[in-house]
Amino acid sequence: MHVYLDNAATTKVLPEVIEAMIPYYTEYYGNPSSFHSFARDAHKGLDDARRTVAKCLNAANPSEIYFTGGGSEGDNMILRGVVQAYRKKGNHVITSKIEHHAILHTLQELEDKGLITVTYLDVDENGLVDPEAVKAAIRPETILVTIMTANNEVGTIEPVKEIGAVCREAGVLFHTDAVQAVGHIPVDVQDMNIDLLTLTAHKFHGPKGVGAVYIKKGVRVPAMITGGGQENKKRAGTENVPGIVGLAKALEIQTANLEANMRKMTALRDKLIAGVEERIKTVHLNGHRTQRLPNNVNFGIRYIESESILLMLDLQGVAASSGSACTSGSLDPSHVLLAMGISHEEANGSLRMTLSEFTTEEEIDYVLEILPPIVQRLRDMSPIYPKGGEE
Amino acid sequence: MHVYLDNAATTKVLPEVIEAMIPYYTEYYGNPSSFHSFARDAHKGLDDARRTVAKCLNAANPSEIYFTGGGSEGDNMILRGVVQAYRKKGNHVITSKIEHHAILHTLQELEDKGLITVTYLDVDENGLVDPEAVKAAIRPETILVTIMTANNEVGTIEPVKEIGAVCREAGVLFHTDAVQAVGHIPVDVQDMNIDLLTLTAHKFHGPKGVGAVYIKKGVRVPAMITGGGQENKKRAGTENVPGIVGLAKALEIQTANLEANMRKMTALRDKLIAGVEERIKTVHLNGHRTQRLPNNVNFGIRYIESESILLMLDLQGVAASSGSACTSGSLDPSHVLLAMGISHEEANGSLRMTLSEFTTEEEIDYVLEILPPIVQRLRDMSPIYPKGGEE
Repeated sequence: MHVYLDNAATTKVLPEVIEAMIPYYTEYYGNPSSFHSFARDAHKGLDDARRTVAKCLNAANPSEIYFTGGGSEGDNMILRGVVQAYRKKGNHVITSKIEHHAILHTLQELEDKGLITVTYLDVDENGLVDPEAVKAAIRPETILVTIMTANNEVGTIEPVKEIGAVCREAGVLFHTDAVQAVGHIPVDVQDMNIDLLTLTAHKFHGPKGVGAVYIKKGVRVPAMITGGGQENKKRAGTENVPGIVGLAKALEIQTANLEANMRKMTALRDKLIAGVEERIKTVHLNGHRTQRLPNNVNFGIRYIESESILLMLDLQGVAASSGSACTSGSLDPSHVLLAMGISHEEANGSLRMTLSEFTTEEEIDYVLEILPPIVQRLRDMSPIYPKGGEE
Repeated sequence: MHVYLDNAATTKVLPEVIEAMIPYYTEYYGNPSSFHSFARDAHKGLDDARRTVAKCLNAANPSEIYFTGGGSEGDNMILRGVVQAYRKKGNHVITSKIEHHAILHTLQELEDKGLITVTYLDVDENGLVDPEAVKAAIRPETILVTIMTANNEVGTIEPVKEIGAVCREAGVLFHTDAVQAVGHIPVDVQDMNIDLLTLTAHKFHGPKGVGAVYIKKGVRVPAMITGGGQENKKRAGTENVPGIVGLAKALEIQTANLEANMRKMTALRDKLIAGVEERIKTVHLNGHRTQRLPNNVNFGIRYIESESILLMLDLQGVAASSGSACTSGSLDPSHVLLAMGISHEEANGSLRMTLSEFTTEEEIDYVLEILPPIVQRLRDMSPIYPKGGEE
């Protein structure tokens, strides 16, 4: 059995999405900036995709959607752009300690260059940012607050609407990295008081290498990639029309099926959580138990190393993760888990299993069958596991 | 009849390329940074692609190839990165007046920010940069020379090897934007003394939204997009594995067929050039007649506006261009043609027709049949055309 439980890292592309993309590789392959029928067909695909994405996010206008090469590019474009455009207003940025590295490393670089000072907000033991803490951190020179919609490792959903309201009242721009949220939970930029948002297609069954940002009308974000005048001069380069069409198709499908998918995944997620807690001793659910992405399960499993579990699971056909795919290969424990107050030791034994709507109950049963003996075997080999039982 | 003669703007994706990509959307869709079999398959695709691209460019090592989101991103990454990394060495950059806007606008922005001073070299009436002029422009504080391999509008092939030799002798880094050249003419980074190179897949029958840069070992180019550690920490973001596999496949095919394609296209190109010169009065071939991309034809057609010709050609099924697709929609005449000493008036009447190996002799015959009456009709309507014949 092959069980793919690494959907927070990336997802399988839907057949309907590939079907929608292919004509733009083979027939409507013109450069949208050109002046002929091949170009017009491509341009229409681009316009339709922009309208679809705007509608799915409830943006006031399709012109507020700009296509990018992915989530990290979008985060970089927004952070670097806002810092440049608003430098006369101020140089202070507020974020949290559990953001994705595309946010944290970029802010750190801007800080190292002396362009900004950054407040890194603490989170509670569930990974939640407190809107009151955001409010308290805002200074006259604050130009931007950036807090993710949902965490990629532990699945905790942040109180984005409340944080957005705090920012709006203070007249500070609010960006949210919604890479893990869009296509998985409802995201409404107007209702949630969002000025700037990042998303990427491959997290919701769209193609890799394409994303989008929402930039509310009037917010200034100069281009990071300069050259031609594409994307209303905000992002030079020939538009990835097939990718953009695929992004829009995937988002349209996921939005239409959002509630059904959420219900299905939440039930399986909770079955998996309950099953692990029932069968394996000394485990700790990382992240908020209910204010949580429907597809995310993340456990701290004491006395063992994540990599050993992943290896054993992989041998039995189960693809899981220790946390963020972007830092795999690194030996540092997760900055997210550490910020939540979890010990180094427990952070080293984290296991993330992220579902999709294609995950079946049979697959969850299989994982619940093979995981406990794997954990027991590894614990029996562990020098730090208290032999002869504990608890 | 549908005749696509806008291959310098973008190309149709080869069926073999799509075929190579699809398994990476549907089967080997794992995140290459993850730790399981889905990820290993994806990682293997990435490694194989890197090796293929290195081989096609004759790079000494696959680790000198970094994948990007396209040509403009690659140019930006290299220019911004080199300026940042070598700022202690100097702040002077040399380029030409006919570079792509991804180069010129980026250098202008860096100049406006006070980070560099730029020498914009003149070109001759054929669009050629003189290696001696490069040599003469080098100063102690020069950190980079960036000259394109072949021009996107007029097809002129620059003396890159000689320019590279000048730079190497002076100890100055040499970058070439080879977006129009790779897959069309032989490009060998070692033989041509290239330190840094940009390419993009969609110009040689690969997918849009993916490109690569060559960075010679030891040359410092810090990441422009920061975050995760992908691409050896030079470009954060989940790798666009299907796109990268498609890029490599397209380049492999084009490299294998390079000589045959060049021969075929050169013959059709020269037939089209000769046919236009024979049938239409007062035309001027823009760009070098022989030191020219095999697929490029660019004529200045006096007394008429490009857009009118394009419209009429499009009505008869022929997709062509006035110059760069990236500046279409702009009313400014081509900076390339102006730099070559062509008058505003003649620059406004430029017609670029760019072939591919799929272009047939029948299609060229068709264009030679319909173009002269279109030009005559437009000239008859033109108030500036000397009626009753001229010459």
